[in-house]
Amino acid sequence: MYKIFYSPGACSLASHIALAETGAPYEAVRMNFAAGEQRSAQYLAVNPKGRVPALVTPNGVLTETPAILVYLAQTYPAANLAPFADAWAFAEAQSFNSYLCSTVHVHHAHRTRGSRWADDAASIEGMKRKVPQNMADAFALIERDMLKGPWVAGSDYSICDPYLFTLASWLEADGVDIATLPRVHDHYNRMLERPATKRAMREQGLIA
Amino acid sequence: MYKIFYSPGACSLASHIALAETGAPYEAVRMNFAAGEQRSAQYLAVNPKGRVPALVTPNGVLTETPAILVYLAQTYPAANLAPFADAWAFAEAQSFNSYLCSTVHVHHAHRTRGSRWADDAASIEGMKRKVPQNMADAFALIERDMLKGPWVAGSDYSICDPYLFTLASWLEADGVDIATLPRVHDHYNRMLERPATKRAMREQGLIA
Repeated sequence: MYKIFYSPGACSLASHIALAETGAPYEAVRMNFAAGEQRSAQYLAVNPKGRVPALVTPNGVLTETPAILVYLAQTYPAANLAPFADAWAFAEAQSFNSYLCSTVHVHHAHRTRGSRWADDAASIEGMKRKVPQNMADAFALIERDMLKGPWVAGSDYSICDPYLFTLASWLEADGVDIATLPRVHDHYNRMLERPATKRAMREQGLIA
Repeated sequence: MYKIFYSPGACSLASHIALAETGAPYEAVRMNFAAGEQRSAQYLAVNPKGRVPALVTPNGVLTETPAILVYLAQTYPAANLAPFADAWAFAEAQSFNSYLCSTVHVHHAHRTRGSRWADDAASIEGMKRKVPQNMADAFALIERDMLKGPWVAGSDYSICDPYLFTLASWLEADGVDIATLPRVHDHYNRMLERPATKRAMREQGLIA
């Protein structure tokens, strides 16, 4: 039985959806970030980084979204979530997810988590101002060059899809109208139709 | 014949070292960031992100350090650079590299690339002030919990090692004394002894 620690709508949603796609039994554990639960001694014993996601596995605790996604894909090959046998196709999937974690998520975080990178209120406000443009630029590249369609990697659904979906769900709050990105928008709507997406969103209280 | 685009001492050094470890033939192409070569039309045709590294392969151009490292490891299994057959060990390696790209590299970038996240000079200065503490905190976690020793993953050298080495080489300029991190320091010195490290550093003009 896996345990996935999440905060509703945070990047942990990607791992939560992928876990639901595998069909493996799991328990989803909500962290109350507003109450600072992610910095409690109890949670730091699970994940010293004080972040989500954290996936408790039979081998130990795994953190970092791209690693969790690949681990689930490799452990449940029947779910066909990553093209391991094709080094180039796997590399492209890894490159996509790495861009999301190191660039797109980081852009987004400058709106709500600026205190990670500066202490003074003026600098934190300065960072917020640039978020809409940075998110628009990053998603323009995804729309133009990276999303093959209908799924990220082309005809097959993969671990790139729940990750893109999760970050695309942040666009409105980040000041970007998803309707200006027709291919990303189409992908987002297609993701919403999958049973695993619905299950994870329901468990996180994001949909009824 | 591969082609690796790099800027001397930038994160592309990790991929450059891994490429040297594989023994595959390659050409290393220096980008002059001070002259803005990374934003030239010629380079944007190679990598629309305008960043390094970019690896030109027989299949196409690959970007993002964690993806390049895994691609090289998978394409050259004889070099034994990643534990593909063990899903958990591979997940731990991926988690390590993902932390480096999405957290540690990002902390560092707030010293020299603050204009990515804010436009005003005061905010960019505000970000710079927090870099020494953020780098010290991230490397304290690596020192305490993540670097198994003697190599990152334990007894076997892997794709985590040139990546850690590269980011550790930034510590001094980021205001952190590597001598305060004895295990990271020991790892750094051990990396310097490897022929592939020497070859890549020599090709980048970092050592004589």
